[in-house]
Amino acid sequence: MLDACLDPEMASEITLQPVRRHGVDAAIFFSDIVVPLKAAGVDVEIKPGVGPVVAQPFEAKADLERLPGPAEGMFDAIAAGVARTVTELGSTPLIGFAGAPFTVASYLIEGGPSRDLPKTKAMMLRDPALFGALLERLGELAAAFLRTQVLAGASAIQLFDSWVGALPARLYAQHVAPHTADVFAAIADVGVPGIHFGVGANHLAPQMADVGCDVLGVDFRVELTDVDQHIRARMPLQGNLDPTVLLTDVATIEAEVRRVLESGRGLRGHIFNLGHGVLPDTDADMVTAAVHAVARYGQPFEEAT
Amino acid sequence: MLDACLDPEMASEITLQPVRRHGVDAAIFFSDIVVPLKAAGVDVEIKPGVGPVVAQPFEAKADLERLPGPAEGMFDAIAAGVARTVTELGSTPLIGFAGAPFTVASYLIEGGPSRDLPKTKAMMLRDPALFGALLERLGELAAAFLRTQVLAGASAIQLFDSWVGALPARLYAQHVAPHTADVFAAIADVGVPGIHFGVGANHLAPQMADVGCDVLGVDFRVELTDVDQHIRARMPLQGNLDPTVLLTDVATIEAEVRRVLESGRGLRGHIFNLGHGVLPDTDADMVTAAVHAVARYGQPFEEAT
Repeated sequence: MLDACLDPEMASEITLQPVRRHGVDAAIFFSDIVVPLKAAGVDVEIKPGVGPVVAQPFEAKADLERLPGPAEGMFDAIAAGVARTVTELGSTPLIGFAGAPFTVASYLIEGGPSRDLPKTKAMMLRDPALFGALLERLGELAAAFLRTQVLAGASAIQLFDSWVGALPARLYAQHVAPHTADVFAAIADVGVPGIHFGVGANHLAPQMADVGCDVLGVDFRVELTDVDQHIRARMPLQGNLDPTVLLTDVATIEAEVRRVLESGRGLRGHIFNLGHGVLPDTDADMVTAAVHAVARYGQPFEEAT
Repeated sequence: MLDACLDPEMASEITLQPVRRHGVDAAIFFSDIVVPLKAAGVDVEIKPGVGPVVAQPFEAKADLERLPGPAEGMFDAIAAGVARTVTELGSTPLIGFAGAPFTVASYLIEGGPSRDLPKTKAMMLRDPALFGALLERLGELAAAFLRTQVLAGASAIQLFDSWVGALPARLYAQHVAPHTADVFAAIADVGVPGIHFGVGANHLAPQMADVGCDVLGVDFRVELTDVDQHIRARMPLQGNLDPTVLLTDVATIEAEVRRVLESGRGLRGHIFNLGHGVLPDTDADMVTAAVHAVARYGQPFEEAT
């Protein structure tokens, strides 16, 4: 999996397949949260049925010293993969991809996927200086990783803070938001829109909307109309069809797509998407059905005046 | 672990230890979400570092036929453990424990712990009749399990729907709430207060408060004052110190305990608790510090008039 992400031909082909098959309006560059770590030389692999597993979990200051920052040539394979993809895509835009510092740190500290992130939270509270230094380093890697993708032709970027919903707003604001904001600030000069997304993180929406992103992604647990009104008035939202809907039938999918589209009507802008990743058991034809329903019932984007 | 839950002497001793050590105001009966399954004869075990693992995951109607409903004598070991505990506790009340039908079903269907519950959600949508029948059977087991605990001397019960936060409100209302409500209805005649709790489920609070419980548990992700005002006006809340706070120091713990107690002042009632389970790395002395802080800064309960 990680080898595929770092193989320009393979990453490009996998990125293009859903565009060819489903006719979506944009592609997202095929990658994984831990790809910048792999590119930086960290011993990490994706174990089937488990997820990313780190050989030597991050525990102490010495681990920070052996975690490289971004370096010349580190993301050359990514640049080549993006360039190749953009050429093939033609007028279809490509969205760049990266994991936010907190979520990448959680894999490094836990050593693998974890529901409650106990070691990550413990380090945050017991050694905030080390935790902050780790997030700073990971933020630099994320920014370089995203910059590479934009310079190679990506038209927008999305920063995934997948597991940040495990934090209450207080801890997020203090220990995480500044580092996420640094990532958006570091790539502000490249001038593409930035989307920010977390899972089960609606209680953090006001803070997440404030890190310098242009669009906030919303997961499937809440309605777009339930998102804080100040956010809705200020920026477009992305989301949020429940991926489980793709496990049903075409009629249900059409009804649910319409419901989501209608919930996005009064917004400042709405990018239709799932509210989380496609589930493993999904029939690809049901993804096509959802894309067709969006084309049929959606309204073309009009620039806000 | 499951053997300990079904051994009256051991379950009682483990239940009593935190009461002796920390001087808490109530005990909760030592158990696990899957104990009723084990007692009913399902091949389930707790794998260290993983969680409950089911040998033959629930997939089809035939699996429902081999899942027994409650039967005479099935929970005798639980009754013996509770009776023994209540005698030892004296005037300290005991809270009974059970997993709600959805969360128990998720272990049966996934075969073990899962972050996204893809198989559970797929069954819910593809075969709602089978899913409903499974939750009904599990609800009967949960009700019998709780009734056993109350008849043996428990003064209150808590129903944990740990993973229900994975659902949007729509699906929860349709496929889960009726079965949870059946559990509370089935034990209404025993006349003890019922607490209901889910993790990351604040978006479901209005529906969860409506299943017949008397108290709603709130996890650490939101403030008590952020809970829906209609719920706050109607019932006491339980919660919600972030368990990560116990990883810090006494001064931080005292400050955070006071903050949580203050957030509960205007409520119809507040049962101080953590907003999720104690994290593995926690120093037991820090639990004692939290209990002492509650005793120092909390106000004794006064009956609402």
